[in-house]
Amino acid sequence: MPEPPDTLSKVLALAKRRGFFWPSCEIYGGVAGFYDYGPLGAQLKASVEGLWRSYYVAGEGFAELSAPAISPEAVFRASGHLEKFSDLMAECGKCGEAFRADHLLRELAPGEEPPASVETMAAALRRAGARCPKCGGDLSEPFAFNLMFRTNIGPGTRRPGYLRPETAQAMFLDFGLLYRHFREKLPFGAVQIGRGFRNEIAPRQGIIRLREFNMAEAEVFVDPERKARHPRFSEVAGMRLRLVPGEGPEGDLSLGEAVSRGTMAHESIAYFVGLTARFLVEAGVDPARLRFRQHAQDEMAHYAADCWDAETLLSFGWTEVVGVADRTCYDLEAHMRASGQDLRAFARYETPVTVERTVVAPVHAVLGPRFKKDARAVARALEALEAGAVEGRDSVEVEADGRKLKVEKDCFTVKKTTETSSGRWFTPHVIEPSYGIDRIIYSVLEHAYSETKKEGEDYFVLRLRPMMAPIQVAVFPLLNKDELVAVADDINRRLGEAGFRTHSEAADSIGRRYARMDEVGAPFCVTVDFDTLKDGTVTVRDRDTTRQVRLALAEVAGAVGELIEGTRRID
Amino acid sequence: MPEPPDTLSKVLALAKRRGFFWPSCEIYGGVAGFYDYGPLGAQLKASVEGLWRSYYVAGEGFAELSAPAISPEAVFRASGHLEKFSDLMAECGKCGEAFRADHLLRELAPGEEPPASVETMAAALRRAGARCPKCGGDLSEPFAFNLMFRTNIGPGTRRPGYLRPETAQAMFLDFGLLYRHFREKLPFGAVQIGRGFRNEIAPRQGIIRLREFNMAEAEVFVDPERKARHPRFSEVAGMRLRLVPGEGPEGDLSLGEAVSRGTMAHESIAYFVGLTARFLVEAGVDPARLRFRQHAQDEMAHYAADCWDAETLLSFGWTEVVGVADRTCYDLEAHMRASGQDLRAFARYETPVTVERTVVAPVHAVLGPRFKKDARAVARALEALEAGAVEGRDSVEVEADGRKLKVEKDCFTVKKTTETSSGRWFTPHVIEPSYGIDRIIYSVLEHAYSETKKEGEDYFVLRLRPMMAPIQVAVFPLLNKDELVAVADDINRRLGEAGFRTHSEAADSIGRRYARMDEVGAPFCVTVDFDTLKDGTVTVRDRDTTRQVRLALAEVAGAVGELIEGTRRID
Repeated sequence: MPEPPDTLSKVLALAKRRGFFWPSCEIYGGVAGFYDYGPLGAQLKASVEGLWRSYYVAGEGFAELSAPAISPEAVFRASGHLEKFSDLMAECGKCGEAFRADHLLRELAPGEEPPASVETMAAALRRAGARCPKCGGDLSEPFAFNLMFRTNIGPGTRRPGYLRPETAQAMFLDFGLLYRHFREKLPFGAVQIGRGFRNEIAPRQGIIRLREFNMAEAEVFVDPERKARHPRFSEVAGMRLRLVPGEGPEGDLSLGEAVSRGTMAHESIAYFVGLTARFLVEAGVDPARLRFRQHAQDEMAHYAADCWDAETLLSFGWTEVVGVADRTCYDLEAHMRASGQDLRAFARYETPVTVERTVVAPVHAVLGPRFKKDARAVARALEALEAGAVEGRDSVEVEADGRKLKVEKDCFTVKKTTETSSGRWFTPHVIEPSYGIDRIIYSVLEHAYSETKKEGEDYFVLRLRPMMAPIQVAVFPLLNKDELVAVADDINRRLGEAGFRTHSEAADSIGRRYARMDEVGAPFCVTVDFDTLKDGTVTVRDRDTTRQVRLALAEVAGAVGELIEGTRRID
Repeated sequence: MPEPPDTLSKVLALAKRRGFFWPSCEIYGGVAGFYDYGPLGAQLKASVEGLWRSYYVAGEGFAELSAPAISPEAVFRASGHLEKFSDLMAECGKCGEAFRADHLLRELAPGEEPPASVETMAAALRRAGARCPKCGGDLSEPFAFNLMFRTNIGPGTRRPGYLRPETAQAMFLDFGLLYRHFREKLPFGAVQIGRGFRNEIAPRQGIIRLREFNMAEAEVFVDPERKARHPRFSEVAGMRLRLVPGEGPEGDLSLGEAVSRGTMAHESIAYFVGLTARFLVEAGVDPARLRFRQHAQDEMAHYAADCWDAETLLSFGWTEVVGVADRTCYDLEAHMRASGQDLRAFARYETPVTVERTVVAPVHAVLGPRFKKDARAVARALEALEAGAVEGRDSVEVEADGRKLKVEKDCFTVKKTTETSSGRWFTPHVIEPSYGIDRIIYSVLEHAYSETKKEGEDYFVLRLRPMMAPIQVAVFPLLNKDELVAVADDINRRLGEAGFRTHSEAADSIGRRYARMDEVGAPFCVTVDFDTLKDGTVTVRDRDTTRQVRLALAEVAGAVGELIEGTRRID
């Protein structure tokens, strides 16, 4: 069930009020597409990233890198981003405002699918009679606007640099160093958690479409001959997920069925789709509001051959939060061509393979006297010929040093040779799970959000999972009295030492403090009252049921640990 | 003792060979001032940042934020960076190369202190006969080059943006939200760990002077009337540190003495100097190669009133790694002026204070008939006067609506009033410990680095502290035999589950594997051999002493934990 449409503004208001996140530079009127994470939001972000590391670094054994956000132009010229990473836009000649061409068209012709080329878009906008939505002025012809932020490295403008639109490229550039780090054995993976940048024309929806965003990406380098199988596929094969394939009906399917029926191309994509589903649910996404949708062919990024998006259902519709793409050898090949460096891998055969070949062999004793100084060039030209091209012929024509020369058949023979090969060279393929951390955080908040009325007033509860909550347990003295505060401080310190994220405050009524903790999603509150001083017990309150139980001081730390880990419940 | 000067290149070579860090974009020839952290380096960076969080977030209770790297121009116009954050440079008219003017001058006139203004620098360069060091061509007049990377937010150039040169500004902009988060009580602190950017003209020395670097900053907001004292100063007062004050002799001094003698201005600066020393030594900086140097007046950043740098002694000299600055109310005042927003705090008195004042009071019954429509303006002008300026005079001249008017003494009286105030409004001062994470990492590596000869070959050992080492324990089967590998895998898994950073490999001789672990600074190696299969014991080797001890399998995990924590030693 999606939340009502105004949920976005309510969640954004709560996020600001309680220190999760807020628009950057608000004292200067804000700047669209930029948000600051406040104390609770930065902690939630750290928890999401920590969980991600537990999946991809500890769980998969991938290596984490940390590369700069700025890269020189050569990188993005090779990767294709300089040419292809753009949106079509049009500018108002009167007020100067800029608009995305596809947004203009969707407003005017809701049914029509926005075309991709400049010419077809220009025609479509004319047909729809597009004018500036702000002032009614004439719009410019649509033109491609590159979405990378551009800057200059060092003084002057001779060395342009760009802010990375994805963290992936550094991992492709570093392939050789990574390959040696992993002792030249595939598959292996590299990951980065960090900032990405997209100079959006129209940022919107809080932290959903940002110009500077947080992402976590894994680049998994695999042998293309082996990517159909994944060694750990059996761990996810039984998972049933809601799938929306590019062709064919939407429906629930197990990943095993999806691969065997051809809905998903191979186990490597399916494995990371499964891992992603598990991760998202553990982070706090509602499994009933999660689906995986395959990109249509014309929707795919320029580097991808196949892509499945994890989408969460939010109050404004299904929203991409993770992409699992098969980038094939696109990037490594592109960087090999542009840099001239070898970014291939070698697969050693278990036993060397001997191959018999028929080759053209020059007869040097004849070639020398006949071709003099051209003899070596002719010999090389002959060696390059296929045996089939010369067999049975009296002469062949070859090119040597730019000239065409006729070579009689006494100058060559055709013979059989055997070659032993210990393995094969290949360009690895890349499977890329790419996570939008901000979108995951927003999805988790909206799926955790609930509002009710309490004594006529709006009452908000964030049902964050205890392992993810920025505050896991609050410890309150019932009243701001020294003897109660002292006991609360001691419990707070012990819980902190045990590794839990705690909070304590003594001001306001206990009801108001519970309400604040419900609103920031703290799953448990411990309250020290006057009975504590008499019988050494405290109250532990459960956010979701509001049930309370009294526990002895000595067992509080252990019990709270079990409650947070979910091995104990308050009944 | 500093390392010999070629240590830099040796440490950089080791760092690249073993996956700590390497120049970015090497396949395209690199780009000066940018480095990638590889698998081991990213882990070391995570450990340094984790230790920093344990000091500043858990230890000090400061709130962590996460704000964008890009900010709009308004922020840096107000902060002074747009005007003042620049270096003087000169360009060669022939080859186009750019140079820092102070570097040119230091080469030509080593004794001379480079001047700060454009005019004096121009004269000094002419006097020294400066020419292009690369091609001998004529140099341009020196000019100021702003060190911020500039970009444009959204389409067009109407909204310039800059990459932050420090993370601090977002914490000033967010002061109001933070103040409410901390329930309007000072002192409190906010921190950020993230990227900073400086478009250096001449980046150098590996990760020491980068164009994109990692930093960790705390902004501690204090009541200026209370910054002389720090509530936890007693915890550091006894620490003896090597201090180099701006004036007066260099020497070892306890922080308590430094404050009482006036060497350090107040306890707030001294407390964070002490915390910094403790942090650096725990991270692995050699305390004998650490000092704190006060900035000279003309060396200070434009926002600082006082600054003490932590400097480590490296093979190329003393190097700033942390700055502890007193930024006073500079930034908050600047942003208040520029934004018109109130960024002040309120200090409530324990009991309200009643103040008696003598004021000028207009006599409205006289003013009205005499000044008609100007009466209100005249009354306001009178109220603004000091009582002392009117007492005993027959008339006063006031300005009302731009005109000067004479006002007779029957129009006003002087009277005493009492005002009760519950507290005072003030602009907080900011104490800022700002850490250069990359420089700390390099210092830790160089201070841990040692080389010897072993069988005629160079042998490298990184004596990283066990809590910081990217690999804390390696588990090796003596030979690559299934029965040994199985036991090693099991130990490896148990140590990983216990939270240690482990590593395992079976290829190569055990000696070569130990050598690799010494080179990456892994403090302990566990080796499974054929005796293990007989008597259930394994060898544990200490990197620094190369001593080995045999331990029973059952106690390995516990013993390794104690070794890493330093509560146990191999004798």
